[in-house]
Parts: sequence; structure tokens; C-alpha cells
Amino acid sequence: MILCDIGNSYFHFNINGKIFDEAQCSIKNQKVYFISVNAKKTKELLSKNPNSINLAKYVTFNTHYQGLGIDRIMACKTIEEGVVVDAGSAITIDIMLNSLHLGGYILPGINALNRSYKQISPILDQHFTMQVDLKILPSTTIEAISYGSIGMIVAMIEKVAKNKKIYFTGGDGMYLAKFFKNSIYIKDLVFRGMHQTIKEIKA
Amino acid sequence: MILCDIGNSYFHFNINGKIFDEAQCSIKNQKVYFISVNAKKTKELLSKNPNSINLAKYVTFNTHYQGLGIDRIMACKTIEEGVVVDAGSAITIDIMLNSLHLGGYILPGINALNRSYKQISPILDQHFTMQVDLKILPSTTIEAISYGSIGMIVAMIEKVAKNKKIYFTGGDGMYLAKFFKNSIYIKDLVFRGMHQTIKEIKA
Repeated sequence: MILCDIGNSYFHFNINGKIFDEAQCSIKNQKVYFISVNAKKTKELLSKNPNSINLAKYVTFNTHYQGLGIDRIMACKTIEEGVVVDAGSAITIDIMLNSLHLGGYILPGINALNRSYKQISPILDQHFTMQVDLKILPSTTIEAISYGSIGMIVAMIEKVAKNKKIYFTGGDGMYLAKFFKNSIYIKDLVFRGMHQTIKEIKA
Repeated sequence: MILCDIGNSYFHFNINGKIFDEAQCSIKNQKVYFISVNAKKTKELLSKNPNSINLAKYVTFNTHYQGLGIDRIMACKTIEEGVVVDAGSAITIDIMLNSLHLGGYILPGINALNRSYKQISPILDQHFTMQVDLKILPSTTIEAISYGSIGMIVAMIEKVAKNKKIYFTGGDGMYLAKFFKNSIYIKDLVFRGMHQTIKEIKA
């Protein structure tokens, strides 16, 4: 079975349980079960794989949130209770309770934050260090912007999650999960939601 | 006496105690005491006011931070103890103890955060609502990005400040101060540091 999660930046494939991150879509003439937040890339997938199925049309999910992204729905769908953090181009923080989605936040992703400094001042146009110790007070500009950005993401997740379990996924999910005790990184969390949706369709 | 604080985006003048925020520098042939984080705007001021004095050359300030911006030095200089937040194009968070600067963070400013979403996805290209209630879970995209961004700034300041008093200044300082009980907004905080520096020079 071939699944595809089309994000803002990339195609993510799951082919018979193995995950492939590919900038380009090289799959052809297959029945791909997909979700997408990128209309242009959706067209690309469908032109190569006309028999593909958009799972957004079939998914069931309990939320009062208007316009919740299909990637967030799939990441949350298999989590009964806890906080779901999908850290990619954007970082979404969603709260689940008794399989009900209560709401959630969208933060800029780590790369987007890094880029944002560049537009403020040439002095702040520096690449983050990812070697961040949040217990140490920054004493250089590069520390001030790196610890500041990672620190504000971590502080927000802490405040939202309190003592709840945190499920991380996405490109920066493993990195961010390290800052939290009560956390787990699940690489294929979105695909798990897609698999469950397919099961529900076929049931 | 004419003071000028040249920021990343604007000239800020203090003329005989009154503050003027001007995009353009209209002062001519005056002795302006100034600080600057913008080389281009410094040239502009000096070409119109050749007898002006750059206070950066004279200021004394205790810190182990390498390359601390002169605006941050001036904002912190008159604060013996507490957290100093200058919320402009960037948001700086600095910690003072016994008139010693212990270190600090640099976050993107509110406008920079708003702009950063645009580059992630067209769906996220929305203007923030500033009517933010951080006790309510977002249930729309505009709430998710607004509460998310303001929330992460507030969460970071809370975490850094703990129970210390927080001194806000800068264009978004008054707005952010409202989220904190133990806070005060001081519009002319940077100018206070400049005034003290002038006193020290003349003493």
C-alpha cells in the first residue's frame, strides 16, 4: 500500500510501511492514498497517479475547529488524549481529550523563525546553533537568537501541555522532543491516522 | 537637549523631554546625542547634524555579553534589578541583577512573526488579531497563528522573568505589558539610559 502526505515543502511517502522523504514525486501509475495541504503538489501527484484517493474526503474527526488542516487531523486522529506537536515548516500544537480535538496553535517552524531575523537587521542574519542549553543565559547574538527562538517554542509547548503527554512528529519533532520528559517522537504519526482512515473506509 | 535613538526601522527623538517618532529625520544643524543600530540612518543623521555625539563611545555598562546592542545597553542601564523587554522590530529580553547585565534573548518582533507565516503557506498569510485571550484555545486559523505567536512571546518572557519585575519599552511594549501582573511600561526607558550617560560624561 502506498500512502503520501503532501506537506507545504515536501512529498512524504509511506510504501508498505517504509517512509521515504522525497522532494520530487517519482511514483507513477499507482493507487496512492494521499492527503495534501499543497494544491500545486496535489496536481503533480494526480497527473502521475490518476487513480489516487484523497483521504480528506473520507476522514471522520471530532473538532469544533474551523478549517483544521488535514495533516493535523491525521496526526491527531489516533491520539485519544494528550498534546500533538507536528514540527515542520510550521509547528502545530493540538490538544486531544477523549478522542475529541479541543483546539490548537500554529507557530512558525524553526527554519521560518531563523529566516525572520534576517529581515529585521543584518546583525541578526545568522544561522541558529542547534546546540541549545536552555538553562544557560545567552551571552552572544547567535546564542540570543538560537536560545530565544527554540526557547519560545519550548516555553509555549510547556505552557500548553502542562503535565499531559506530548506526541511529537515532523522534521524537527525528534529535536524538540528532547526538551520534554513526558514526550514521545512518532515519525509516522500522520501515516497512522491515514491507515486508520483507510481501515474505516474499508470496514 | 535633543536625543535620538536610531532603531532598525525608525528615528526616535526626545526633544526637551518630549518624544517624537519619525520615519524621517527632520532635525538639522543641531547637537544631537544619539545611539544607533543602523549605519545607514546614522550617516543620514550626521550629514544633517555634523556636531552630533554618539553616546556609544562614552557609555559604561557591566556585562559579560559580547556585542550587546547599544539600544539594549541604554534600556538596561537605569534598571538595577529585573527583566527589561524592548519590543520593537525584534524583542530583546535582558536580565539585570545588582546593576549587572547577566545575559539576554532576542526574539523576532510581532510584525516579523506575522510576516514569517506568509512564507510558510498561503493559507497562513493572514493578519494577526491583536484581541488575544490566552486562556481560550484557538479554533480558527487566525486565532491559531495570533494566539500562537503572542502566546509564545508571553510564555518565553514568563519563563525568563519568573517573579521578577518586568520593564517593558518599545512599540509593542505597552501591548505586551498587559499580559503581566508584575510589569511596568516605560516609554522613554532607552532615553533614560542616554540621559544618565550624558550626566556621567559631564560629571
